Amino acid sequence: MEMNIALLPGDGIGPEVIDQAVKVVKAIGQKFGHKITFKEAIVGAAAIDATGQPYPDATHEIAAASDAVLFGAIGDPKYDNDPKAKVRPEQGLLLMRQKLGLFANVRPTFTFPSLVHKSPLKLDRVDGVDLVFFRELTGGIYFGEPRGRNEQGDKAFDTNVYSKFEIVRLARMGFEAAQKRRKLLTCVDKANVMATSRLWRETVQELAPEYPDVKVEYEFVDAVAMRLIQWPKAYDVLITENLFGDILTDEASVISGSMGLMPSASLGLGVKLFEPIHGSYPQAKGKNIANPLATILSAAMMFDYAFDLKEESELISNVVNLSLEEGYVTEDIADGGTAYKTSEVGDWLAAKILA
Amino acid sequence: MEMNIALLPGDGIGPEVIDQAVKVVKAIGQKFGHKITFKEAIVGAAAIDATGQPYPDATHEIAAASDAVLFGAIGDPKYDNDPKAKVRPEQGLLLMRQKLGLFANVRPTFTFPSLVHKSPLKLDRVDGVDLVFFRELTGGIYFGEPRGRNEQGDKAFDTNVYSKFEIVRLARMGFEAAQKRRKLLTCVDKANVMATSRLWRETVQELAPEYPDVKVEYEFVDAVAMRLIQWPKAYDVLITENLFGDILTDEASVISGSMGLMPSASLGLGVKLFEPIHGSYPQAKGKNIANPLATILSAAMMFDYAFDLKEESELISNVVNLSLEEGYVTEDIADGGTAYKTSEVGDWLAAKILA
Ligand SMILES: CC(C)[C@H](C(=O)O)[C@@H](O)C(=O)O
Ligand SMILES: CC(C)[C@H](C(=O)O)[C@@H](O)C(=O)O
Repeated sequence: MEMNIALLPGDGIGPEVIDQAVKVVKAIGQKFGHKITFKEAIVGAAAIDATGQPYPDATHEIAAASDAVLFGAIGDPKYDNDPKAKVRPEQGLLLMRQKLGLFANVRPTFTFPSLVHKSPLKLDRVDGVDLVFFRELTGGIYFGEPRGRNEQGDKAFDTNVYSKFEIVRLARMGFEAAQKRRKLLTCVDKANVMATSRLWRETVQELAPEYPDVKVEYEFVDAVAMRLIQWPKAYDVLITENLFGDILTDEASVISGSMGLMPSASLGLGVKLFEPIHGSYPQAKGKNIANPLATILSAAMMFDYAFDLKEESELISNVVNLSLEEGYVTEDIADGGTAYKTSEVGDWLAAKILA
Repeated sequence: MEMNIALLPGDGIGPEVIDQAVKVVKAIGQKFGHKITFKEAIVGAAAIDATGQPYPDATHEIAAASDAVLFGAIGDPKYDNDPKAKVRPEQGLLLMRQKLGLFANVRPTFTFPSLVHKSPLKLDRVDGVDLVFFRELTGGIYFGEPRGRNEQGDKAFDTNVYSKFEIVRLARMGFEAAQKRRKLLTCVDKANVMATSRLWRETVQELAPEYPDVKVEYEFVDAVAMRLIQWPKAYDVLITENLFGDILTDEASVISGSMGLMPSASLGLGVKLFEPIHGSYPQAKGKNIANPLATILSAAMMFDYAFDLKEESELISNVVNLSLEEGYVTEDIADGGTAYKTSEVGDWLAAKILA
């Protein structure tokens, strides 16, 4: 197969971890005879520094013309504590999501037997957790208008807005995923307070009869924030709006003890994007110590979701598991054993794929 | 001292647990020579059934004229499963908060040595946790206008809105609490996305120099949702807007393993209100098995926050600790030992206070 992959390494450790994913993807290409072309582009703080724009048009053209995007991370502390900064790296992320039509962020939470002891939760609560969030990604309070300040500047406002079609397309992805999994869908909202949430609940209730094999539960966001810690195994597929999804997927990401390893996919109208859920981790930048596994597992999701190549996807997951079992890992999960460098882990995995 | 206390038992187990708090408050009054008068009023589903209104004017008059309100819980399943119900118990809660000007919800999370083993978190993460949220309670997306649907009904919207003065008065409470505690204040927002959050961050940054002994941290709500589970001991005082506070205080409530015991206070322009954070627990209603300790600890907060009577407050906390140590508790925390009835626990605590 021919594949054009856009690489958007971004900021902080982004470039280092993307480098390792590229090694792995190349090895897969070589082994399975795929012709893979990479095109790199800038985004985030790196792009602001170079062009003044966090998601330059040239980057968008490369991303939109590709078959899949591998994304690193964005964010630089120099922009964080300046509430008056006019351009921020995050705006690049939001613009990219919107311009590429990436309306669904898919975030699995699962455990690795060799890492589950690192969970902040007790073993019986977390052992075997396997849930996936479908977070709406191009609507809600992230983009709603009006937003801003009054003239005097002493009053600020944001608008949360959802149209039914936005809920339908996201919910259908959730229903379909549930059908292939344990057949439980949880609709997370705040329907006792918010008008948008009542439209979410109503819309999901209307769709439910089309998926008679899926059991649907409706839960308030505050209750889910509790139950996710109390008993995460209760969940299978969760669907929710943009802001609730931002909070809950991050909460969920720490329960497995493998946050540094969690991949994600963003799907929608056209090209699909894959990225680790961890951030740009500026303190580790350039030190060759960052854990590349989340990005490499995102590449595994890419072969599955973007190219429907299950064998390639599984081979990557398998060599990642092997690296965990054999302790060929970076310092964050070395647990007193030898700590390997970011680049060494990438080389090792690529070699295993070709072995 | 003379004290007029309004009792708003509400729904479900509310009346039973309020009864026990009344026994304890009466015992305190007797021991310390306070003249305490109680006036009871209806709220929630109980009030809808009786008057059609979830927060009737007569109830508001009693609450507003009191020195402090002891509140039970509201909510009845018969309203939950009727998405088209025109009047809902929760509306009573929101109206009450607004009409009484209760703009700050104070929610401590702390551990009881005898219960910390019930936490879903590992002992080293949770042992000795001691944090308190100040959640803004009368603003934000809970009340902002416009909210509703478009004419066709296929688009819904909510408005999040904050004026600077709302942030200032809440933040000052947080700063002052931090000064009396470990001197760390965390401002929780989503300033990388929301205009309201940028006003929050800016306002807190302006106030900070007035409290030079307090260290201020700014953290995004998604990061806090993670760190609250990873390492809750990192926090002291957290301030945040209404919706983020709803989600995060519920998340925080499960980490100590003592959710059924956590009290809260709502403070603001006039009368102060005290309530357990647990819900109306309709399955247990009328069975005399509900745990009254959260309501009794809320009464302890009342003596401290509403009447500045530290000794009275501490005596209540001490007898509650005694009941935990001696295992004179309800079935939910009896852990295989004898389970006492709700009313027996109330009697025991009142007797200990007078002993
Ligand atoms: C950086 C930020 C704007 C972003 C979001 O809130 O969506 C991030 O938290 C995420 O979840 O990808
Ligand atoms: C019942 C609901 C409206 C309420 C809220 O969201 O404020 C509750 O969750 C709470 O936290 O007191």
